[in-house]
Amino acid sequence: MPGNKTTHTVQWGDCDPLGIVFYPNFYRWMDEGSWALFNGRGLTLEAMEQRFGSLGAPLVETGCAFKSPARPRDVLTIESEAVEWSKRSFRMAHTFTCEDRLVAEGFEVRVWVLDAPDHPAGIRSGNIPQEVKDLLS
Amino acid sequence: MPGNKTTHTVQWGDCDPLGIVFYPNFYRWMDEGSWALFNGRGLTLEAMEQRFGSLGAPLVETGCAFKSPARPRDVLTIESEAVEWSKRSFRMAHTFTCEDRLVAEGFEVRVWVLDAPDHPAGIRSGNIPQEVKDLLS
Amino acid sequence: MPGNKTTHTVQWGDCDPLGIVFYPNFYRWMDEGSWALFNGRGLTLEAMEQRFGSLGAPLVETGCAFKSPARPRDVLTIESEAVEWSKRSFRMAHTFTCEDRLVAEGFEVRVWVLDAPDHPAGIRSGNIPQEVKDLLS
Amino acid sequence: MPGNKTTHTVQWGDCDPLGIVFYPNFYRWMDEGSWALFNGRGLTLEAMEQRFGSLGAPLVETGCAFKSPARPRDVLTIESEAVEWSKRSFRMAHTFTCEDRLVAEGFEVRVWVLDAPDHPAGIRSGNIPQEVKDLLS
Repeated sequence: MPGNKTTHTVQWGDCDPLGIVFYPNFYRWMDEGSWALFNGRGLTLEAMEQRFGSLGAPLVETGCAFKSPARPRDVLTIESEAVEWSKRSFRMAHTFTCEDRLVAEGFEVRVWVLDAPDHPAGIRSGNIPQEVKDLLS
Repeated sequence: MPGNKTTHTVQWGDCDPLGIVFYPNFYRWMDEGSWALFNGRGLTLEAMEQRFGSLGAPLVETGCAFKSPARPRDVLTIESEAVEWSKRSFRMAHTFTCEDRLVAEGFEVRVWVLDAPDHPAGIRSGNIPQEVKDLLS
Repeated sequence: MPGNKTTHTVQWGDCDPLGIVFYPNFYRWMDEGSWALFNGRGLTLEAMEQRFGSLGAPLVETGCAFKSPARPRDVLTIESEAVEWSKRSFRMAHTFTCEDRLVAEGFEVRVWVLDAPDHPAGIRSGNIPQEVKDLLS
Repeated sequence: MPGNKTTHTVQWGDCDPLGIVFYPNFYRWMDEGSWALFNGRGLTLEAMEQRFGSLGAPLVETGCAFKSPARPRDVLTIESEAVEWSKRSFRMAHTFTCEDRLVAEGFEVRVWVLDAPDHPAGIRSGNIPQEVKDLLS
C-alpha cells in the first residue's frame, strides 16, 4: 500500500519576513503527515496504547532538504510513507510538492516506545509488533 | 509583591511577511510570563498537583491590544501580574514594552482545575486555595 | 453574504502536556480564517496592494473565550465573518465548533494599513474603501 | 573564534501531550542560534543587505538527532557554530545540552542569497564574501 497524502495551504503565519515558509513548519507538517498515516490505518494514540501498550513513536532523527520556496496560498501536497523498518524503529519519508514543483524532501526516524515509569526518561524503546508494520506498510 | 518580568528578543521566525510579530506569538509569551510567575513562586505544575491536587490553570478567556509593531531583535519586556481573584478563576495582566515604547497589553483569565476522570472533559474547576492566592499576589 | 467556513483537524503538535490545544493556536486559526475569507473574496495581499495600495489589515485587538477543550483528531469548524465596520478598522468574529459542541468564540479588530515609508512604523492606517467593505460583507 | 551560546528554558507550550518538546521547536531554536551568531558578529539582516546586497541565508538542508527528551523548565544551552564553508553555502552545527546531558545535535546548510527580481523564486544564490566567512568563523 502506498503512502498517505495530506494537503496544506501555506498560511500567512507560516511565512517569515522574506515571505517564504519558515522552515521548522515543514517538520510540523511531516509530523502531521505521519499522524495522518497512523490514524488512517487505525493506529491512533489510543489504539497504540490499548492494543500494544505503546506510548507512541517519538523521533530519534529527522532531516529535510528544501528544494524551492513556498509562499502564502501555495497548496502543498505531502506524501508520507513508511519506507524502512528495523527492530525498534522505522523511517518515514515525506515529499512536499506544489503542483508539479518539488518543494522539499524530508524524513523522520521514529522509535516505538513503551511506558517505563522506572526509567529516568519515563519511556523506553520496544520491539515493533508485526501487526503495526503490516498496518503501516 | 509586584508582577514578574521576563524578556524575549523577537526572533526572525516570530515575524510575518510584513516583518512584524505574527500576533499569536504574543499569547505564547503571555503563557510563558504566567508560567514564569507560577514557577518563580514555587507553583510548578508538579507542586500544583502534589500540594493542591490541581492539574494547572488553563484559560477561559484571553485578549490583547496591539499598540505598536515589534520586529526582529526588538527586546520585549513582559510584566506579568495576577490582578484579580474570584473563587475559581483569576486574571493575569501582561504588559509588553520595548524600552519606553508600549507594544501590547493583554490579559488571561485562568481557571483552577482538578482531575475529574469521570467528567467528559477529564477536568473540572475547583476553588483556588488561599495559599495559592497568597503566593501569586 | 454569511461568513466563511474553514476546518482544522487538531494535530498532536497543537496540544500541550494536558493533551488539549495550546491556546495561542486558536489565534493562529482565526488569522487563517480571516485570510481564507479575504482570499475567497478576491482580496489577496497582492490584490490589496495593487488595487487599493494597502499592505493588509494587521491587528489592533484580539480576544477569545474558550468554552470546551479540543484534543488531537477533533475536527474544528471555524466560521469567520466581518461583523462590524468603522472608518479605518473592522471586526471579525470567529466561532469554533466541533460537531455540535461550541469550542471557542473569538474576535479580531483589524485596521486597514497603507505603506508609509516616512512613518516610524513604516505603515499608517487609512480609510477602508467601500469596495472592500462590500466584498467582505 | 568558537561558536555562540544561547539558552532557552523549555516552555509549557513547547511540549506535546507526552510532556516532551515537540520536535519542530528544536529547528526553531537552531534558527535562533544562527541569527544570534550572525547578529552578534554584526551581520544583521540590514547589514547583510546594505554591505553585501544579500537577502540573508535561507536553508537548503537541515537535520537533527534527538538524544534525550527535554521537558518544561529544562534549561537548554544551544551552541551554534559555522563549521564548514563552500563557495555559496555553509554549514552550521548546533548542540543542545541540559547541564551535562546531551539533548540533541543538529545542523543547517544555509545558502547565501541575493535579490533577483527576474528569477521565478525572487532570489538566487551568490558567492559568500570572504569578509562574511571571517566574521562567522
